[in-house]
Amino acid sequence: MLDFDVSEYKERVSKVKNRMLEQDIEVLVMADPANMCYLSGYNAWSFYVPQVLVVALDLEEPIWFGRYQDALVGAKVTTWMHEENIIAYGDDYVQNPIKHPMDYLAQILVDKGLSRKSVGVEKDVYYFSARAYECLKSGLPDATFKDATNLVNWVRIVKSPGEIDYMKRAASIVEKAMQQAYDAINVGTRECDVAADIFYAQVSGTEEYGGDYPSIVPLLPSGDKTGAPHLTWTDNLYNDGEIVIIEIAGCYRRYHSPMSRTVSLGEPTPQVSKTAEIVVEGLNAALETAKPGATCEDVEAAWSSVLKKYELFKESRIGYATGLNYPPDWGEHTASLRPGDKTVLQPNMTFHCIPGMWFEGFGIEISETFRVTENGSETLANFPKPLYIK
Amino acid sequence: MLDFDVSEYKERVSKVKNRMLEQDIEVLVMADPANMCYLSGYNAWSFYVPQVLVVALDLEEPIWFGRYQDALVGAKVTTWMHEENIIAYGDDYVQNPIKHPMDYLAQILVDKGLSRKSVGVEKDVYYFSARAYECLKSGLPDATFKDATNLVNWVRIVKSPGEIDYMKRAASIVEKAMQQAYDAINVGTRECDVAADIFYAQVSGTEEYGGDYPSIVPLLPSGDKTGAPHLTWTDNLYNDGEIVIIEIAGCYRRYHSPMSRTVSLGEPTPQVSKTAEIVVEGLNAALETAKPGATCEDVEAAWSSVLKKYELFKESRIGYATGLNYPPDWGEHTASLRPGDKTVLQPNMTFHCIPGMWFEGFGIEISETFRVTENGSETLANFPKPLYIK
Repeated sequence: MLDFDVSEYKERVSKVKNRMLEQDIEVLVMADPANMCYLSGYNAWSFYVPQVLVVALDLEEPIWFGRYQDALVGAKVTTWMHEENIIAYGDDYVQNPIKHPMDYLAQILVDKGLSRKSVGVEKDVYYFSARAYECLKSGLPDATFKDATNLVNWVRIVKSPGEIDYMKRAASIVEKAMQQAYDAINVGTRECDVAADIFYAQVSGTEEYGGDYPSIVPLLPSGDKTGAPHLTWTDNLYNDGEIVIIEIAGCYRRYHSPMSRTVSLGEPTPQVSKTAEIVVEGLNAALETAKPGATCEDVEAAWSSVLKKYELFKESRIGYATGLNYPPDWGEHTASLRPGDKTVLQPNMTFHCIPGMWFEGFGIEISETFRVTENGSETLANFPKPLYIK
Repeated sequence: MLDFDVSEYKERVSKVKNRMLEQDIEVLVMADPANMCYLSGYNAWSFYVPQVLVVALDLEEPIWFGRYQDALVGAKVTTWMHEENIIAYGDDYVQNPIKHPMDYLAQILVDKGLSRKSVGVEKDVYYFSARAYECLKSGLPDATFKDATNLVNWVRIVKSPGEIDYMKRAASIVEKAMQQAYDAINVGTRECDVAADIFYAQVSGTEEYGGDYPSIVPLLPSGDKTGAPHLTWTDNLYNDGEIVIIEIAGCYRRYHSPMSRTVSLGEPTPQVSKTAEIVVEGLNAALETAKPGATCEDVEAAWSSVLKKYELFKESRIGYATGLNYPPDWGEHTASLRPGDKTVLQPNMTFHCIPGMWFEGFGIEISETFRVTENGSETLANFPKPLYIK
């Protein structure tokens, strides 16, 4: 069931070990499910209980550590490591206030002679709690702890050809899902029925390959609520005169291609039309600036110079690295397209450029996922980006 | 857009304040999106960035604290508090290694005169990281910190009539989705197309009301992989002779009714049939035991005495409190149906009883969500639970 050749996983582990050396980290404990998947192949919806992957300079293979019922079959069939490197904790550790899986992990690291090492942990990820960290520290009193948040994510920022291929498949899926959304949104239709159509398209995928679950559900604010980018849907009916934002992704084997578009039901106000035109002009300027050697803040500056021309201002970043992830985010938490981010673009970096404009009365989102090429950039999907009027 | 009367939210806050008093907590900082929603109404897919709700004994209303683009409209339209209690941080705090939203929150608490209080934080939740905790502690050096994990969850364990009504609606949705799954699973069908059908049914809901996104995607292990309960789906075709596990939920306004069933494509082996019969017998025994006054471990004991009769053993808990939640879990992280859990059942507690049996060669899952009634229990959904054979 591996999504990549074993050699690619081993190369990734080797790159991570090089970073660990640079950062004086001897043992890396990862709880980010995307990082676990990237290095081991592990892929299951089990991240709601503690689980980690451990990479140690002294150990050839990573160790998968998780719940017994996930170790028994799931970790064996989805990872490339030898079985002795799949280690399970019992179910009495699950959601139990008096014992924590990280107590047990500490014991395993002691047994493997790793108790006095420099241990990197991801201090700012979703699935490694403050308590997990306290338990691990208390079980390894002689270890030195370092923050290794995003260490693996920064290795992931440049995609392999195989990863790009998966993201292009995801882009084909999002084209289908966006078309489905556009077709479904009509005055008098329930928002939930549009969301259902989008999910169907996302998950059934294409005739050639199926879709995976995107890490974020369809974001579908409409009418007055378009100023709120992260609302999902209700069972209200769409009304004439409303605008509707659609922010979705296609996903193939955990790789995402996000996209957003905006639809107006009926003739939009001049302000809405004008804002949409400005967003498209700014987005195009950003995409034209994205090339090897440019920085993330250069890309943002191209956008904001367009805004400035129209005397507008956007408070938030206009994009972020994307690709492999699990809920609740398809962003990769490394580079952001914003002032101050001096990350230099390289070929096969991939970003979701989403210069959304949100106001108290309305919002516009038109976005593209792009890949940095040898001498510029290309959008992964091919879907026209006007303000759609129905 | 409130899902309950303002009076119900205020009553919930008042119950939480009573617990805080009992536990000597003067300020409670909650990052669990279900707890935020329970007390404030806030509902958006924005928990991928730091956000919290603060309840202080000295303050009448909770404070919502989150990202500017979510505060501007989303927090205003989905919560009941006055606007001055919606406080935003700027986008430069998002995924920035040199500044963290919790630095800013600490400053706000200082400004409100809460810097020397006893502060409860949820140390073991998904969306409050080790770094978030460190930043908050370092910004409030004179505060005393206490672990308040699950403080609000324990208030949530007994549902109000309105919440039960939402869970019954979710149960109607899961009946529809399970029927859809059963109809769709056939030899030669792609797993992803079955998952797409399930999503469609979950989200479109019924003619009367739409569905919300369940906190876990359909879990659909098949064949050899049925021993791995948390695998999702692939684009492989179902084969004759395989068994397929379907674990899904209906969701209505963030309230869940989970259910699992098992389908055999073709005649099952005697071992599979027998195991399914035992699971149903044990599940029925557990459901008959569930009544006010019984404990969670009593319910498990009824199950395990059936297993014992057949010389079987199950390593893991057979259920957990369920209801309101966000990804990645629809469990509420309070009571578990397992040995040692002495939680006494009360009317309107709700559990997902899932005595799954997973082996290296196959697995069986047949489950029910039940409500404790005045003198027994009732399943929320009505869907026969044999081993289905197609």
